[in-house]
Amino acid sequence: MAIIECVPNVSEGRRTEAVAAMADAVRAAAGVRLLDVQSDASHNRSVITLAGDAAGVERAVLALVERAAADIDLRTHRGEHPRMGAVDVVPFVPIDGVTMADCVALAKKVGAAIADRFAIPVYLYEEAATDPGRKNLEDIRRGEFEGLAAKMTAPEWKPDFGPAAPHPSAGATVVGARMPLIAYNINLATNRLDVAKKIAAAIRQSSGGFRFVKAAGFKLEDRGIVQVSMNLTNYEKTPIFRVFEVVKREAERYGVQVLESEIVGLVPAAALNAAAEYYLQIEGFKPEQVLENKLKT
Amino acid sequence: MAIIECVPNVSEGRRTEAVAAMADAVRAAAGVRLLDVQSDASHNRSVITLAGDAAGVERAVLALVERAAADIDLRTHRGEHPRMGAVDVVPFVPIDGVTMADCVALAKKVGAAIADRFAIPVYLYEEAATDPGRKNLEDIRRGEFEGLAAKMTAPEWKPDFGPAAPHPSAGATVVGARMPLIAYNINLATNRLDVAKKIAAAIRQSSGGFRFVKAAGFKLEDRGIVQVSMNLTNYEKTPIFRVFEVVKREAERYGVQVLESEIVGLVPAAALNAAAEYYLQIEGFKPEQVLENKLKT
Repeated sequence: MAIIECVPNVSEGRRTEAVAAMADAVRAAAGVRLLDVQSDASHNRSVITLAGDAAGVERAVLALVERAAADIDLRTHRGEHPRMGAVDVVPFVPIDGVTMADCVALAKKVGAAIADRFAIPVYLYEEAATDPGRKNLEDIRRGEFEGLAAKMTAPEWKPDFGPAAPHPSAGATVVGARMPLIAYNINLATNRLDVAKKIAAAIRQSSGGFRFVKAAGFKLEDRGIVQVSMNLTNYEKTPIFRVFEVVKREAERYGVQVLESEIVGLVPAAALNAAAEYYLQIEGFKPEQVLENKLKT
Repeated sequence: MAIIECVPNVSEGRRTEAVAAMADAVRAAAGVRLLDVQSDASHNRSVITLAGDAAGVERAVLALVERAAADIDLRTHRGEHPRMGAVDVVPFVPIDGVTMADCVALAKKVGAAIADRFAIPVYLYEEAATDPGRKNLEDIRRGEFEGLAAKMTAPEWKPDFGPAAPHPSAGATVVGARMPLIAYNINLATNRLDVAKKIAAAIRQSSGGFRFVKAAGFKLEDRGIVQVSMNLTNYEKTPIFRVFEVVKREAERYGVQVLESEIVGLVPAAALNAAAEYYLQIEGFKPEQVLENKLKT
């Protein structure tokens, strides 16, 4: 069966009963499973993770938007995280038996439905973007809810679907398709923050590193060590093992060893298998050789 | 759902219609899937791979024994591979949501049923063995079908279940539980067979190497290279990555590089994940972090 993951971000992270009602709306949808809800009070934002087939995910997202639009008013919303909508962003992620093109098609279908049913303007982003200027979420969201009405008067910010002005209380929603994101940290056996920062700069796209790496250097005060904290946004094109090897090599430059690494949250099996293939120099490996995959087919 | 793999070896690898009838007997059982059938004419033997829950696997094995006992006569059977039964050996393998103890219990239950229903003597081996002298299949099978009647007169070769003499045409069957077996080869960038043989000797249990490795050195004539060919019989206790690293290091001793490795047939996901964890130095990794596993639960 095709599996699509969806990770809507909603602009509510403080009123637990409102978050619970949104989670319930997802849970009640057929053909989908609620995997995780993470609320952040200072961001006043929650990240909801769900998965299922295309029809199930569509049902769940529309139920979530209905609930969020009724409960959230951006005019009174305050929080540290940038946002422009009650349901701020809805990425669809291909997991199994489904292509990126399928997720792009689903993003367009769900985006059109959100605009039609709730009169909320919708922008398509990432792989679903209709214009290079709309690929990055940050560009679409710049100015946030407070600047949205003025921004939308410009012809280049006409939404992909729905009215050419913000929804009064629910703002606008960004819908799209992207690869699974892997949150990956490498801890260094040193307390030298400058080393972590230099390595982060070397590997992240923004300063000349890998195309699909975002990275920053941090101190882990309690442990007296430093961390290169990363988001890997396309594990097929920028695989974990290549990033790890470069971090290790760069650390050597400063006489520093890698202490350990950690995967935060979920990782697709294919990303781990690729690391095993690389290091064991396995030739001609096929996913069907994994016993669990064979049993599924 | 609990998944047990079962890999019965039957003493028929030439008459395709007889093999097909045995495969059909497995296929017809509820709660089980036939994954693979490999026949070898010179061995005159077939390896059947199936998987399912305990009840399904039990049903399939009993149906297979019934078919094989009706179709195979060891008195006229010839083949290169050692054998003592129509269904020669039946290993149960824990795959998912099931322990080795569960597979041992299943081996005893199915072994008793084979003896009861078909009057075939049954020996328990590997993890299900009732005596250290019966752990190894080779020890139980020594003397083969032709020597079995004489061997069974000795008190130490009284079977675990069933009559104290061979079934006239179906011999005896060995039933047990073991870890998944991984067929793993490492190809070396050299044509020096002595290097492959020395490395095989260094890593296999029989000559002082790893506890759960069987290995031999071969020439791949057509490619002008050599291969260290291995069976890894317990990937948890002797993991792939450790064997690979030692082969690589031993090869260096002779100025030889590892060209590539290959996994033949199936491999449990956990064996690949362990390699990723090792090389990426991942701390605190949990199987539930694999997205596909999370979706299953």
